[in-house]
Amino acid sequence: MAEPGPGADEQAAREQELTDRVVASFEGADDERLKTVLQALTRHLHAFLREVRITEEEWNQGIEFLTAAGHITDDRRQEFILLSDVLGASMQTIAINNQAYANATEATVFGPFFVDDAPRITNGGDIAGGAPGQPCWVEGTVTDTAGKPVPGARIEVWEADEDGFYDVQYGDDRIAGRAHLFSEDDGGYRFWGTTPTPYPIPHDGPVGALLAASGRSPMRAAHLHFMVTAPGLRTLVTHIFVRGDELLAADSVFGVKESLVMDFEELPAGTPTPDGRAVEGTWARTRFDVVLAPGD
Amino acid sequence: MAEPGPGADEQAAREQELTDRVVASFEGADDERLKTVLQALTRHLHAFLREVRITEEEWNQGIEFLTAAGHITDDRRQEFILLSDVLGASMQTIAINNQAYANATEATVFGPFFVDDAPRITNGGDIAGGAPGQPCWVEGTVTDTAGKPVPGARIEVWEADEDGFYDVQYGDDRIAGRAHLFSEDDGGYRFWGTTPTPYPIPHDGPVGALLAASGRSPMRAAHLHFMVTAPGLRTLVTHIFVRGDELLAADSVFGVKESLVMDFEELPAGTPTPDGRAVEGTWARTRFDVVLAPGD
Repeated sequence: MAEPGPGADEQAAREQELTDRVVASFEGADDERLKTVLQALTRHLHAFLREVRITEEEWNQGIEFLTAAGHITDDRRQEFILLSDVLGASMQTIAINNQAYANATEATVFGPFFVDDAPRITNGGDIAGGAPGQPCWVEGTVTDTAGKPVPGARIEVWEADEDGFYDVQYGDDRIAGRAHLFSEDDGGYRFWGTTPTPYPIPHDGPVGALLAASGRSPMRAAHLHFMVTAPGLRTLVTHIFVRGDELLAADSVFGVKESLVMDFEELPAGTPTPDGRAVEGTWARTRFDVVLAPGD
Repeated sequence: MAEPGPGADEQAAREQELTDRVVASFEGADDERLKTVLQALTRHLHAFLREVRITEEEWNQGIEFLTAAGHITDDRRQEFILLSDVLGASMQTIAINNQAYANATEATVFGPFFVDDAPRITNGGDIAGGAPGQPCWVEGTVTDTAGKPVPGARIEVWEADEDGFYDVQYGDDRIAGRAHLFSEDDGGYRFWGTTPTPYPIPHDGPVGALLAASGRSPMRAAHLHFMVTAPGLRTLVTHIFVRGDELLAADSVFGVKESLVMDFEELPAGTPTPDGRAVEGTWARTRFDVVLAPGD
């Protein structure tokens, strides 16, 4: 009778031969970049399967996971972005594409809640649009890395309300907690929003189940999103975080960078506001000076 | 002014630090196996992104690809299995879990078209259920690796019709081209099916677009699926292929193994059939002796 099975070397050779065959199947791709990406994807995917000695049941569970993620994803819910976020793939992509440049502001994750056609406000306007939360005055400048003001930079801002929900999660068509504005001639900008509060990423789907099974919290550190674009300069996608937030070290999507943690000053009720707006109760203020790197 | 950016070493260190942070986030998983799999997935995913220097646009395209795959997947269409198949991940999982054992029959991909509750036929029955195709007599035995007959083995068989469609692709609830039967006391089994013909995997979705962009054909070599189960023996999921099929070397899911290529003999119209069945026109016959490895 023959040996019952191949030795470890022969088994490894068979597995490698299969990987090589799949890699070779992409040789005919017209687009060199596509070929590079798919061949590397194949190599790393197979290396993962071989390293962990994936079982057929586990692989089926993976297929079921992706299927469930696909089925919960719609116009207002993007489970694959959440998955990319909690695996740190989003932040790794940011790290690769937004290398530190002198004193330029650092980038962080885009997230799934940006909306293209947020309303325009003038400087000093209010982005809240009725979203509940403590009023928060945000001001700063947009400059290049040499400190030269950047007028006319488009500043998109968006944030969750004090209950942790973005407008797209309200279930109706309200627009709240988002707007865009433009920096002035001296690069200055200012607006009213609400003080950011921590919230969980949507965790009633497969990504939430993955986090729970891993003993990980779905909470994000409190933050306010920015996307700043100006001709000739590198587009900046980032957040600002709140100094003192206990979640800074445990952000579920690995988005926190020390340079993005800002002081949010809380003012007692009755404190005059910078623009004379009447505010009932307490309010907060912060300053975020945006420095844009040169374009590529 | 500061240096504009980090050196390559510092950039690599930042990227590695992020990967390490994500790996560490899974330390709290209760299930040791889950921890192992997710930590390895994180390492290999990040290594892929870093190696190809993925762009943000490419990563978004990846998210859109998965979203489209999720949306085309339903009870009868499983795009994620197709994706796994064309990336060779399904065959690699098979290779890892079904190591060659003596003279045991080799395994190949399960595919997306198996249905759990296929009808039972008796030996010599017809699995076609009205599916169009040349009648094909299939017979053989089920034995263990010592040659001892395995009676009562459950044999699931399923196949596409001569137009390349499985019943689940018909768009109605017909059951055709699939059944299960049991081996007899001497391990023997036999049934009528249809002669396998090549067909494309479903290629009107994102996986089809990926194949087209890669210059790859969606065609599968002609085959007939088997799943054979018997107590105490390793379950065998496999196909048999048709000797002479031009697609044997270019199967879109990398499923072909030389040991699974069988002779299909084509008989002229009027040739008497093994069981006396009256067949109009030509028919074919093949033999497939199944050898099951010991259970784990």
